[in-house]
Amino acid sequence: MRPSGRDLSELRPVSIETGVTKHAEGSCLIRMGDTHVLCTATIEDRVPPFIKGSGLGWVTAEYGMLPRSTNTRMRREAATGKQGGRTVEIQRLIGRALRAGVDRVALGERQITVDCDVIQADGGTRCASITGGWVALRLAVNKLMKAGAVLSDPLIDPVAAVSCGIYAGQPVLDLDYPEDSEAGVDGNFIITGSGRLVEVQMSAEGSTFTRAQMTELLDLAEKGTQQLVAAQKAATE
Amino acid sequence: MRPSGRDLSELRPVSIETGVTKHAEGSCLIRMGDTHVLCTATIEDRVPPFIKGSGLGWVTAEYGMLPRSTNTRMRREAATGKQGGRTVEIQRLIGRALRAGVDRVALGERQITVDCDVIQADGGTRCASITGGWVALRLAVNKLMKAGAVLSDPLIDPVAAVSCGIYAGQPVLDLDYPEDSEAGVDGNFIITGSGRLVEVQMSAEGSTFTRAQMTELLDLAEKGTQQLVAAQKAATE
Amino acid sequence: MRPSGRDLSELRPVSIETGVTKHAEGSCLIRMGDTHVLCTATIEDRVPPFIKGSGLGWVTAEYGMLPRSTNTRMRREAATGKQGGRTVEIQRLIGRALRAGVDRVALGERQITVDCDVIQADGGTRCASITGGWVALRLAVNKLMKAGAVLSDPLIDPVAAVSCGIYAGQPVLDLDYPEDSEAGVDGNFIITGSGRLVEVQMSAEGSTFTRAQMTELLDLAEKGTQQLVAAQKAATE
Amino acid sequence: MRPSGRDLSELRPVSIETGVTKHAEGSCLIRMGDTHVLCTATIEDRVPPFIKGSGLGWVTAEYGMLPRSTNTRMRREAATGKQGGRTVEIQRLIGRALRAGVDRVALGERQITVDCDVIQADGGTRCASITGGWVALRLAVNKLMKAGAVLSDPLIDPVAAVSCGIYAGQPVLDLDYPEDSEAGVDGNFIITGSGRLVEVQMSAEGSTFTRAQMTELLDLAEKGTQQLVAAQKAATE
Amino acid sequence: MRPSGRDLSELRPVSIETGVTKHAEGSCLIRMGDTHVLCTATIEDRVPPFIKGSGLGWVTAEYGMLPRSTNTRMRREAATGKQGGRTVEIQRLIGRALRAGVDRVALGERQITVDCDVIQADGGTRCASITGGWVALRLAVNKLMKAGAVLSDPLIDPVAAVSCGIYAGQPVLDLDYPEDSEAGVDGNFIITGSGRLVEVQMSAEGSTFTRAQMTELLDLAEKGTQQLVAAQKAATE
Amino acid sequence: MRPSGRDLSELRPVSIETGVTKHAEGSCLIRMGDTHVLCTATIEDRVPPFIKGSGLGWVTAEYGMLPRSTNTRMRREAATGKQGGRTVEIQRLIGRALRAGVDRVALGERQITVDCDVIQADGGTRCASITGGWVALRLAVNKLMKAGAVLSDPLIDPVAAVSCGIYAGQPVLDLDYPEDSEAGVDGNFIITGSGRLVEVQMSAEGSTFTRAQMTELLDLAEKGTQQLVAAQKAATE
Repeated sequence: MRPSGRDLSELRPVSIETGVTKHAEGSCLIRMGDTHVLCTATIEDRVPPFIKGSGLGWVTAEYGMLPRSTNTRMRREAATGKQGGRTVEIQRLIGRALRAGVDRVALGERQITVDCDVIQADGGTRCASITGGWVALRLAVNKLMKAGAVLSDPLIDPVAAVSCGIYAGQPVLDLDYPEDSEAGVDGNFIITGSGRLVEVQMSAEGSTFTRAQMTELLDLAEKGTQQLVAAQKAATE
Repeated sequence: MRPSGRDLSELRPVSIETGVTKHAEGSCLIRMGDTHVLCTATIEDRVPPFIKGSGLGWVTAEYGMLPRSTNTRMRREAATGKQGGRTVEIQRLIGRALRAGVDRVALGERQITVDCDVIQADGGTRCASITGGWVALRLAVNKLMKAGAVLSDPLIDPVAAVSCGIYAGQPVLDLDYPEDSEAGVDGNFIITGSGRLVEVQMSAEGSTFTRAQMTELLDLAEKGTQQLVAAQKAATE
Repeated sequence: MRPSGRDLSELRPVSIETGVTKHAEGSCLIRMGDTHVLCTATIEDRVPPFIKGSGLGWVTAEYGMLPRSTNTRMRREAATGKQGGRTVEIQRLIGRALRAGVDRVALGERQITVDCDVIQADGGTRCASITGGWVALRLAVNKLMKAGAVLSDPLIDPVAAVSCGIYAGQPVLDLDYPEDSEAGVDGNFIITGSGRLVEVQMSAEGSTFTRAQMTELLDLAEKGTQQLVAAQKAATE
Repeated sequence: MRPSGRDLSELRPVSIETGVTKHAEGSCLIRMGDTHVLCTATIEDRVPPFIKGSGLGWVTAEYGMLPRSTNTRMRREAATGKQGGRTVEIQRLIGRALRAGVDRVALGERQITVDCDVIQADGGTRCASITGGWVALRLAVNKLMKAGAVLSDPLIDPVAAVSCGIYAGQPVLDLDYPEDSEAGVDGNFIITGSGRLVEVQMSAEGSTFTRAQMTELLDLAEKGTQQLVAAQKAATE
Repeated sequence: MRPSGRDLSELRPVSIETGVTKHAEGSCLIRMGDTHVLCTATIEDRVPPFIKGSGLGWVTAEYGMLPRSTNTRMRREAATGKQGGRTVEIQRLIGRALRAGVDRVALGERQITVDCDVIQADGGTRCASITGGWVALRLAVNKLMKAGAVLSDPLIDPVAAVSCGIYAGQPVLDLDYPEDSEAGVDGNFIITGSGRLVEVQMSAEGSTFTRAQMTELLDLAEKGTQQLVAAQKAATE
Repeated sequence: MRPSGRDLSELRPVSIETGVTKHAEGSCLIRMGDTHVLCTATIEDRVPPFIKGSGLGWVTAEYGMLPRSTNTRMRREAATGKQGGRTVEIQRLIGRALRAGVDRVALGERQITVDCDVIQADGGTRCASITGGWVALRLAVNKLMKAGAVLSDPLIDPVAAVSCGIYAGQPVLDLDYPEDSEAGVDGNFIITGSGRLVEVQMSAEGSTFTRAQMTELLDLAEKGTQQLVAAQKAATE
C-alpha cells in the first residue's frame, strides 16, 4: 500500500559511508533510500561571542540543498542572497538536536560546525542530516580524543531522527517524497540511543490529528531511531 | 513555587481587547500577563502565485517585536536588513496554525494576512500571537460574512496555543519569561476548540525528556487551550 | 471647512499616556487624534564610535510603522530587507530634533535611543514622534537623575513639533491624513518650549509658495507647539 | 572674515558647462567654487507604476558621490550594498525640487531621470545638484520640443538652490565646506526664477535659531538664487 | 620535482562517473586527483528575457563550493548573503566556455543550466567544472535528441579546460593546490576537441611572464585538453 | 574599413590630463577616443587584515560606471544593492594588473586604492582604467617619495593595457564600442613598459580562435601598449 512497497513500520535502506572528504575532521555520506546527504564536521578553536571565556563548547549546524538535488531545479540560495525560512528552521533544528547529546563542559571551549548538504532529495532530508551529522560529529570528536585534546568523551548519548506521518489513513515510518507530499499530518522525532526524547515536532498542514495518532507515530519513531542508532554505531566503530 | 505564585496548571490573566486600530479589518490586543501582542488581520483580493486561479483562499502571518518590547533593547530587524531565524520560524508557525482552522474553499480566492506585533514580551509571545491572531481573523471574516462576500463561515474550529514546560522539575502551564529561561524542556501546543491537535513542538535545549513527561505537558496544554478558546469566544461575541 | 470640523488653528485632541511598557527606561503612547505613536527611550552605556572617549552623550532615534497602521497594509520593512527612504529621513529628523534640547556634556558618555513606532497613522506621525519622543526621553533622564547618574539636568529646553500646510487655500494647523493628502504645501516645524526654532521644513509637491504664506504657517506652528509643550509638561510632572 | 575672503552675501564663482557627455539627452558640469557636479538627464518612455496610464509625466533624480570626491575617501555605496540615509534624503529632495518647475501634463507620459554625480565636493553639493540638474533637464526637454514630442514647454519656472547659514555669528550665503562644518545653523533654499519658494529646510545640529535669523537667511537665499537662475539661462541659451 | 611526483606534462588521474543523481537531465562526478566536482545539467523551456522570441537557446552555469570542500572551512555563501567575486567570475567563465561548443539555433529556445558544485577542492576547480560540465551538458542534450526535441545535434565541438603554470621555474600541466599556491604565473586554457581555442586566461600575481613562457604553457594545455576530451568521450559513449 | 576610419593597428587618440581633483593624492582623466575614465589614487596607512604586520604594502582598485556613461541608462549599482558580476571581475583585474608593477616591500605597510569611474563609455573601459590607474598611482607614489615616506621607488615597471580583437575577419587594435559589439573574439592584454606580459585574457563569445590569430593580436597589443606607456610617461613627467 506504500508507493515503495515498504511495510508501514519499515525504514528505507540506510547506508552510512564515512571518510568521504579528505579535509573535514569528520565526514559521512548518509543515504536513506534516495535521500543522500553529505555531512562534514569542522573543529575550530573559536566559539560564539555569547560563550567566550565560559569554558563551554558549542555545536552548530548549517544546511543546504544543491540546486538540482530536487526534481525541478531550485534557485541557489547564494544567488538569491539569503537562506530561505525553511533552511533557517532546519539548520537551527539540527544544531539543537546534536547539542542534546553533547556534554559541553567536556568538549571544552571549541566549536564544531556540522555542514549538511543535500546531494539528492527524496523526503526526510532534515532527519537524515541529524542522523548523519551525528556520525560526522562522532568522528571529529574521536580525533580530539585521540589527540588528547579532550579528557573524557563529550558525546554522551547518540542522537538520531526519523519522520513519521499519516499516509492514506495509516501511520507510516520514514516518509519518502511521494508519501510526504500526500500526508496531511507528519512529524519529526529526534530520539537518543538510550530512548530519551530530544524534540518532537508534529504538524498538520490544513488538517488536525488526535492524541491516539500521536501515540502511534511516536511508537514507530522509537523503533526507527533505534535502528538508526545501530547504523551509526556500525559506521563509526 | 512558581516565581509568579501561580498554580502549576494556572494560566496568566488573559485579556483580549478588540477593535484597537481603526484601519484593520480585524484587530485585537491580547495580554497574557505581561506579554502584550497587537494582532491585526488584513483582507486582500490577491493570493500568492502558487494558488492563483485555484479558487482557494490563503491565510498567512507576519511577526515582529518592537525593539524595546524586551528587557534589553533588541536591534530593529528593518535596520538589520533581515528577519532573524527565530522570527521566520515563528511567523511560519502562526500561519500554519491559523490555516488549520480555516476552510480554504469557503474563504474563496482571497488572502488574509495576520500581523502579530509584540508590544511587550514576557514569554510565550508566539502562543499569544496565535490565540490573538485567531481573534483578529475571526473579526475580519465576520466582516466578509456581513458583506455577503462569503456564503458559509470559513472558520471551522477555533485555534489557540499555549506553552508548557518542566520548571524546577515540575510540569507547568503557560511559562512566563523567568520560567522559560530556566526550563530545560518546553513545548508549544496548538489545539482547536474541539480538542484536536494542530501542532506539537516539544524541545529540549541541551537536555532530554521522557514520554511520561510529554503526556503530562499535553494534559496541561489541553486544559489551558480550552480556557483560551473560551476567552476568544467571549471577545468576539 | 476642514474635514474634521476643526478651526484653522486648532490642534487635534492630544493625549500622552506615560509608563506604557514595563521594560523601557521611559515610555509613552502619544495620540494626536487618530495618530497613535508608541515612544520608548532606552539608556545604554555605549556610545557611537565617533564620540567614544569624548565624554559627550548621544541621543538617537529609530522610527517604524506597523504594517497595518495605515489604511491599506504596507509591506513590513524587516521583510523587505531595508528601511525605505521615508523612514530613514524621518528617523534622522527625530534624532536631530531631540538633540537640540539636550546638553550632551551634562548627559555624559551614554546613549539614549528613542524608538517611535506608529500603531495607527492619520497624518503627522513624524511630528507626534518628536513630541512623544521628548516625553520618553524626559522620563528616562528623570531616572538617571534620581539614581544620581547625572549631576545636572541634561534636558535644557523641551522640543515639540507640529505640521502646518495650505489646505483648500487656507493655512491650517496640524494636518490630518485627509488634509495632508490634498495639501500642495506643507511643513514640519520643530520648536522649543522657549520659542526657539530647531528645524523648519517647508515643502511643496508639484507646487510653490510665498514668503507671506510661510510666515502665516510659522505663526500657527508657534501657537501649536506651545500647547504641545504644555501637554508634555502635564504628562511628566 | 570668511575663510575664502568672500563677502557675506557673495556666491562662489559659478560655471555651468553643457554638453559634457555624448550619450545623455541633456548634461552639464556645474562648478560652485570647488564643488563640481556632473548632471545628466535621461528621457525614457516608461513611467513609474503609480502613474501608468494617467497621461502625466515624471521627473526623478539620483545622487552619488565618487569615492574620492571628498577629503578622505568614502566607501563606494555600490560596494557597501546600499545607499546611505544622506544619499536617499538628497536624491528625494532633488527630484521634488525639479518637479516643482514642471507641468507634468505638458510633459506627457514619459520619465526624465536626472543623475547628479559629485566629482569633487566642497560643501553645497545638493544645491549644486538642483541648479545643475535643472540645466540638464532644460536641455533634454529642448530636444523633446525640437522633435515635436511635446507641444508646449513643460518647464514653467526655472528652479535653483543655495545654502545659507550662520557662520561665526553672521548670516552667510553659499557655505563652502570649511564654513559648513563650523556652522551650527544652516539651510537649503530652493526658489524659482519668479521668486516663489519650493522648499525651505532650516536645521540646527545641537543648536537653535530665531525667526529673525531665518528672515535674514531667506533674504540672502533669494538674492543668491536669482544669480543662479541667470547663470542657468546663460548656459542654455 | 613536483610535490605529487608527476611529470611536468602529466595530468592528475581523471575519472568521470555519470548518472550520479536521479533528478538531473545530465550529471557526472568528475575527479581530477583530489579535486571532485559534481556537475548537473537542467533543461528548462524558458530562456532569459534578452533572447525571448529569438528562437535561440541558452546555456548558463552556476558554481559553488561546499563549505568544507577546502582545507579550512569557508563561510557558506548563502549565509553570507552574496556570492563572492571569485564565484561570480568562475561561473561566468564556465557558461561562456560551454556556449562556445553549442549551436544555439539547433538547441532551440530552451535553457540548460549547468551547476558545478565542488565537493572537495585541490586546485583547478574551475577547469574541472568546465570539463565535467560539458559531460553533464552532453548527457542532457542526448535526452533531448532521443526525445526528438531537437533535430540535429546542437553540440558541435566538445570543450575541455586545464590549468598550466610556472612552478619552481618550470612549466607544468594541471596544477594541484600545493603547486597553485606557489606558482607566480598560471593560466586557464579552454580548448575544443578539434583544437580551437575558446578562452586563454594567463595571469601573474605580483609577477610577469614572457611570450616564450606563454607558448610553452599553451603547448602543455593543448596536450592536456586532448586527453580530457578523450575522457569525456569515454564517459558519454 | 573600421567604422572610425582608423588603421587596423591604430590606437584611438589618447589624452591623459592629471591633477583633475583636488582631494586625491593622485588623479587623472584618461580619454581613449570617446571612452573617458576618471582615476584617483588614495593612500591610507591601514592594510587589509591578511597582510597586517607583514611590512608589505597593497594596491587595490574599484571600478564603477556613471549611470548615463552608456548609450542607454544603466541602473546605478548603489541603488541595486550590489555590484554586478562584470564590475567585480573588472576591478579585480585592475588591482592585479597594477600590483604587477609594484614592489610591495618598497611600498611599505600602506594601501593605495585606485578608483576608476567611467564618465563616458565607448568600449575598452577596463583597459583605459588600467592605463589611467597607473598614472594616478604614479602621482600618488611621487608624493610619498617627495615626503620621504618611501626610500626607493616602489613602482618598478609601468603597466598599460589595450584590447584587440577580430573585427570583420581582421585583427584590429583598441576596439571601440561599435567594433566590440560585433567582434566574436577579443582580448585584453596587460603589458609592462619593459615588454613583459602581466595578463592575457582572450575570449570568444559563441565562437573560437586559432593560435595564429592569438599571435597576431599579441603583436598588435605589444605595439599599442608601448604607445600607451609613452603617453603615461609624458603625462607624469
